[in-house]
Amino acid sequence: MRIITIGREFGSGGRELGKRLADELGIPCYDKEVIAEVAKLRGVDPEHIDEITEAEIHSVYPFTVSRTLLTPIYFHDAAVDNLTAREEVVKKLASQGDCVIVGRFADIILRDKKPLNLFVYAEKESKLKRCLSRASEGETEKSVKKKMKKIDRARARNYKLFSGKKWGDKKNYHLCINTTGMEIKSLVSALAAYAKAWFEKE
Amino acid sequence: MRIITIGREFGSGGRELGKRLADELGIPCYDKEVIAEVAKLRGVDPEHIDEITEAEIHSVYPFTVSRTLLTPIYFHDAAVDNLTAREEVVKKLASQGDCVIVGRFADIILRDKKPLNLFVYAEKESKLKRCLSRASEGETEKSVKKKMKKIDRARARNYKLFSGKKWGDKKNYHLCINTTGMEIKSLVSALAAYAKAWFEKE
Repeated sequence: MRIITIGREFGSGGRELGKRLADELGIPCYDKEVIAEVAKLRGVDPEHIDEITEAEIHSVYPFTVSRTLLTPIYFHDAAVDNLTAREEVVKKLASQGDCVIVGRFADIILRDKKPLNLFVYAEKESKLKRCLSRASEGETEKSVKKKMKKIDRARARNYKLFSGKKWGDKKNYHLCINTTGMEIKSLVSALAAYAKAWFEKE
Repeated sequence: MRIITIGREFGSGGRELGKRLADELGIPCYDKEVIAEVAKLRGVDPEHIDEITEAEIHSVYPFTVSRTLLTPIYFHDAAVDNLTAREEVVKKLASQGDCVIVGRFADIILRDKKPLNLFVYAEKESKLKRCLSRASEGETEKSVKKKMKKIDRARARNYKLFSGKKWGDKKNYHLCINTTGMEIKSLVSALAAYAKAWFEKE
């Protein structure tokens, strides 16, 4: 089984890289699909599923006691249920065959399957440029910067809580790719060759 | 001009990767050659050149005052001269054309030439295995472990002193490659493809 997980800084092009790499390898890529499945399982709006899970995941873990006490019990339960559902969905998707999974702690959830774990990052200016090029109407440079910071901070915090490991620390990944100034599509054939070599290693 | 620099943890296979990548790209790889040239310039024994430069580089910089005071003035001067010679040699080699340079702060020395900077690392056990497989007679697991630790500690410290940056921090490199469990030669064609894409980016 070839499973590739992609951790990524917001705006680094990790999602695009995942899609393109999956296409190149002829396997599916799961990204928003995970959210949609979790939402279906939980019977809630996909718009809010990640918001609840990612923002409040820290309330799930016993070592964040102070936060738990401050967090409404409803939110706590919702986060636990979302996380459980997310694990279930990620495992189910991965059991169907070779795939690329973007985010969602897939590297941790699927560790027994020995996935190839990639991390995609870039310099701040490069990420900002990428984000601004596809910003929604009404978003300003200031609001985009704020969003970038908020999302990556939540990812780092939640990864730590979920795994005890440091998000983005190169030792947790097999390959870390800096996309600063690069077109994602220019990287794909080299990365596909790398992935093939990696899966043939045993 | 295509210049590739390789930072590497001791025992990660970075040197082998540099040689093989250079062969694949049909360009020279400079590694020990830098030491030999520096030794020639300075008229000293190549065996000791890195020892003096790397162990005592921190005595060269004003912000390590306490150390400077404790360090014999001869050693201080030798380290300064070695560093100057090293910069000169690295710049000269790089001016001759496309190349791969392993270590020697080439990423910092040649920053104006916009090199592609790779960092090669691996899990401790993997590095130990690699080191033990080519240990000299008389070296034990214990002595090899000690050497690994000492060399990487010196590299980290000196890189910081030389550049103000953190050695091995992924943001200082374009690609970080974890060689744990990999045969170096299996990585080379993918990395050559990546390098080609990277140099075509502008």
